[in-house]
Amino acid sequence: MLTTWRPSGIVTFTSDYGVRDSYVAQVKGVILERAPTSTIIDVTHEIAAQDILEGAFQLATAWRAFPVGTIHLAVVDPGVGSERRAVSILADGHAFVLPDNGLATFVLAEAHQVAAWSLDRSEWFRQPVAPTFHGRDIFGPICGLLASGMSLAEVGTPLDPASLVKLPIQPVIASGGSVVGPIVSIDRFGNCRTLIRREQLPDESETLCIRCGQLELLGIVRTFADVAPGMPLAYFGSHGGLEIAVRDGNAAATWHLERGMLVEVRRAVK
Amino acid sequence: MLTTWRPSGIVTFTSDYGVRDSYVAQVKGVILERAPTSTIIDVTHEIAAQDILEGAFQLATAWRAFPVGTIHLAVVDPGVGSERRAVSILADGHAFVLPDNGLATFVLAEAHQVAAWSLDRSEWFRQPVAPTFHGRDIFGPICGLLASGMSLAEVGTPLDPASLVKLPIQPVIASGGSVVGPIVSIDRFGNCRTLIRREQLPDESETLCIRCGQLELLGIVRTFADVAPGMPLAYFGSHGGLEIAVRDGNAAATWHLERGMLVEVRRAVK
Amino acid sequence: MLTTWRPSGIVTFTSDYGVRDSYVAQVKGVILERAPTSTIIDVTHEIAAQDILEGAFQLATAWRAFPVGTIHLAVVDPGVGSERRAVSILADGHAFVLPDNGLATFVLAEAHQVAAWSLDRSEWFRQPVAPTFHGRDIFGPICGLLASGMSLAEVGTPLDPASLVKLPIQPVIASGGSVVGPIVSIDRFGNCRTLIRREQLPDESETLCIRCGQLELLGIVRTFADVAPGMPLAYFGSHGGLEIAVRDGNAAATWHLERGMLVEVRRAVK
Repeated sequence: MLTTWRPSGIVTFTSDYGVRDSYVAQVKGVILERAPTSTIIDVTHEIAAQDILEGAFQLATAWRAFPVGTIHLAVVDPGVGSERRAVSILADGHAFVLPDNGLATFVLAEAHQVAAWSLDRSEWFRQPVAPTFHGRDIFGPICGLLASGMSLAEVGTPLDPASLVKLPIQPVIASGGSVVGPIVSIDRFGNCRTLIRREQLPDESETLCIRCGQLELLGIVRTFADVAPGMPLAYFGSHGGLEIAVRDGNAAATWHLERGMLVEVRRAVK
Repeated sequence: MLTTWRPSGIVTFTSDYGVRDSYVAQVKGVILERAPTSTIIDVTHEIAAQDILEGAFQLATAWRAFPVGTIHLAVVDPGVGSERRAVSILADGHAFVLPDNGLATFVLAEAHQVAAWSLDRSEWFRQPVAPTFHGRDIFGPICGLLASGMSLAEVGTPLDPASLVKLPIQPVIASGGSVVGPIVSIDRFGNCRTLIRREQLPDESETLCIRCGQLELLGIVRTFADVAPGMPLAYFGSHGGLEIAVRDGNAAATWHLERGMLVEVRRAVK
Repeated sequence: MLTTWRPSGIVTFTSDYGVRDSYVAQVKGVILERAPTSTIIDVTHEIAAQDILEGAFQLATAWRAFPVGTIHLAVVDPGVGSERRAVSILADGHAFVLPDNGLATFVLAEAHQVAAWSLDRSEWFRQPVAPTFHGRDIFGPICGLLASGMSLAEVGTPLDPASLVKLPIQPVIASGGSVVGPIVSIDRFGNCRTLIRREQLPDESETLCIRCGQLELLGIVRTFADVAPGMPLAYFGSHGGLEIAVRDGNAAATWHLERGMLVEVRRAVK
């Protein structure tokens, strides 16, 4: 899997470019110039400016829904124009093209087979390279070449995957018998998402107590319909992690929950 | 037309998922995994959370612009995880894949030939099915299969179209000689759109009086250029229904118009 | 180059339609009906309503990133339904389909070879033409026909490119030895963009002073990393024009810069 690269023809694109400007389109133009039959799918371009953690989370939730052979372009790049590396990563048959700044943190934590390359061969870049827009002039062209069938080894120089930058965030921290992890993302419905996974918690025969800020919940339910409208609930979200929501409502707004606040799960006192 | 299904290769996608999260991309990934050459077109993902009426309206304005054989995926789904049905509908040669909650109301009102199926065959779903994300795990896979050429009868069980859920909204209500209907949608320009159609009004030789809130207009014009900049007007919009706008302005903001407010059309007093 | 038209299969789309409504999708539907294998790329649909200058700027930043043979559809059209012309333009091998209202101003200023046609042949329009939605009923169909291989001469009537409407904005105004130009666009990062180009300024051996509002900068740097976090900078942006930004910050918000404010560049006093 690591040595062969068969593109699926799909390129996903995650960035903090927003959709008010032409940045996203410019990157797509250079991809299509090199791989005219590509299908380019937006993950989101509404990552808060330079918010690498949010970008890493969105990328982590998206990639497994695509077939092997998909290229995932991600550009949240506060260090553009500095010495941070541009890299490509092959993880379980998916290719990632991104700045080496932590964006791949959760992908690397999940993937079983990983190889990586430094994108240091300027002959593949779009010239002249604008120092403020590597998405268009470095990452985009590399995606286009990979989508057209070139191998990762042709467009980069091998590097040790262990040297890739990872965000310092701990998915969960156990202390005093409880499992604690931050809200890493709040979606448009106000659902508050953590990286706490089912297998990290006591088994389901025990009733669990979930706390975050002023909110305290008893038990993890299956879905919204398990509680009355307007009521809060904790459940495992579609991305696999524990989430807090309000049925037919907005948990973040109602309960004043914010990204970074800690969610604690412990056995309920009997 | 009802018995044969020839996909156009196009899938449209309407939802309340927003574009900040990866939900839309995840659904597209599972469609493309099953039908790699599909062209997926976003209608909008900015339906207000769980606003079925707005979703139904947007879907109604969009579908006729696409060729026969197009699949229309629509997910505004407050009942996700409950017992509401997942259905597919074949209407005038277009396929619709959506929860049975009223989203198809206006399509059903317009279409001449309708058949429907319940999406109850879990062998076609993406497993495991997340109880909060049927878009990715039920509706998306079905769209992909239909786009790849499977028939609607293969992926579902026939049901009586008369049993499909419809929104209780009346397109128009006639009372005392006038025609009355609510503003069902306000677009980004502040144009206020109703479902009142030309054929429901007295013939064009008569001058009509249009009222909504504090606004009173005499006569229905053809387009913006028929009034001076800054002036309000009533006209038949591109979706076929009566609209109220302000030329080079925002009618909703200027005249304090809101969705649900009633627009009344009556003969002008001579 | 002017006489032959070979479509690349790509259509870009710039508008002020927003993404809350189905307008964008409807236009795409009519394009795909006529050219089913087209790849349609959104530039942006978040141009402020009827803001031709912003539309013209976004189009100017986008088109060169696409291959020759690309069709660029742009619809910011306050005069829809009036007598303004609908036109197609062939500029350096790219086709533009748009209302003749100034949207092509910067493309025309940059292109070396230009020809133009009036879109006056109603047999190619989608009938009936809604007087408020020429994007769907005139511009979209023409794009679809061009994408399917029809020539520009087949779908329009030649006109003199010199007669095309241009915005009155002067890219730069030199006065008293300094170069002055307005901020024409502010991107989502708060970067303030002008049309002042490197070749219009004194050579780089001289230190330049850049002023805008309360902000005064000494020297033009290469990229964000050349200044400390939180500090303002002036540099040539990826679109080729002078920009003002704050590293890891938002220049427009921090320094109260707005579109239309003048940026002045002069030699620093020694």
